[in-house]
Amino acid sequence: MARTQGSHSDITGPRIRAAALQLFARHGYAAVSMRQIAKEVGVQAGALYNYTPDKQSLLFRLMRTHMDELLSARAARGDFATAVEALEDFTRFHIRFHSERPEEVFIAYMELRNLSPDNFATIEALRRQYEDELEAIVQRGISEGAFAVSDTKIPAMAVIAMLTGVNTWFSSGGRLSLDEVETIYWNMVRKAVAA
Amino acid sequence: MARTQGSHSDITGPRIRAAALQLFARHGYAAVSMRQIAKEVGVQAGALYNYTPDKQSLLFRLMRTHMDELLSARAARGDFATAVEALEDFTRFHIRFHSERPEEVFIAYMELRNLSPDNFATIEALRRQYEDELEAIVQRGISEGAFAVSDTKIPAMAVIAMLTGVNTWFSSGGRLSLDEVETIYWNMVRKAVAA
Repeated sequence: MARTQGSHSDITGPRIRAAALQLFARHGYAAVSMRQIAKEVGVQAGALYNYTPDKQSLLFRLMRTHMDELLSARAARGDFATAVEALEDFTRFHIRFHSERPEEVFIAYMELRNLSPDNFATIEALRRQYEDELEAIVQRGISEGAFAVSDTKIPAMAVIAMLTGVNTWFSSGGRLSLDEVETIYWNMVRKAVAA
Repeated sequence: MARTQGSHSDITGPRIRAAALQLFARHGYAAVSMRQIAKEVGVQAGALYNYTPDKQSLLFRLMRTHMDELLSARAARGDFATAVEALEDFTRFHIRFHSERPEEVFIAYMELRNLSPDNFATIEALRRQYEDELEAIVQRGISEGAFAVSDTKIPAMAVIAMLTGVNTWFSSGGRLSLDEVETIYWNMVRKAVAA
């Protein structure tokens, strides 16, 4: 079957985003020019402006796409019979999703300072939504009598930071597989909030 | 009593480091020029080169000073009767030390990519030394029968990431004091590694 040929912007958009992602992660948003991004893609700087009005929009789009994909992937995980099962799924999902996207994760943390106030508010709301989903699991675990913690927000923030930290040291082909790493983290998370 | 007047370099050095710290944290190392740092300090760009040979040396000095201060402050904590007590002290110390230095911590993570290979190796070795101190506490807890974890390196990395994460959300004057936050984290850390 013949595949529908993408329009010019369909083809160039992903390449522009990929180039911007690489360059922002390597040098930082403030040090990268639209001209450098265009050069990396292999187009004239003017062609970039057909796709995106400016560098700020490009950064925002990268960060919003990352958060949208995170929330969609989470939503697809379905329901769980107990809070313990939901927390195990969250733990394994978070490690795997983030370890597959080191540059997006790096930018998501490091470049918050470079978002315009409106864009920052949008990204913050999406992050909050993700944190709230974990907080809801913690609350559910408390009401099921399975978890005992004196706060629900802080355990959510603590677990997310702990799990995202895998990105700072894990390398595939190292001493442990990602499956083994997930299991070790899950045992710690489970015990940390256990009643 | 008359105070000894500092030399020109004694006075300017800390001001240069403070200006570089602010500018690197706000804009990123790659986006900041020596000229901008000189302007922030209120000296000619040439005067900067009396203090530091280049921007790389300035970044390295900021990161090395941060790690030296961290390791000295840790060393001053003394010995503890049990691994549980040592781990509680580590937890509270880490949160407090890092929450007081948000810009140094931000740079310590974000600008590793901009260190020259030799400078990176030096900073990595200092970080490893700090991580090893926590790993030794975990190993001691296992041999005392107080901790049960299937690995010692990963719990150390997990605890450090969890605790450093306080910097991403804590604000003094918020819902909880830093003392309260420390106690909530300590309860989670204690349970996460407990036998």
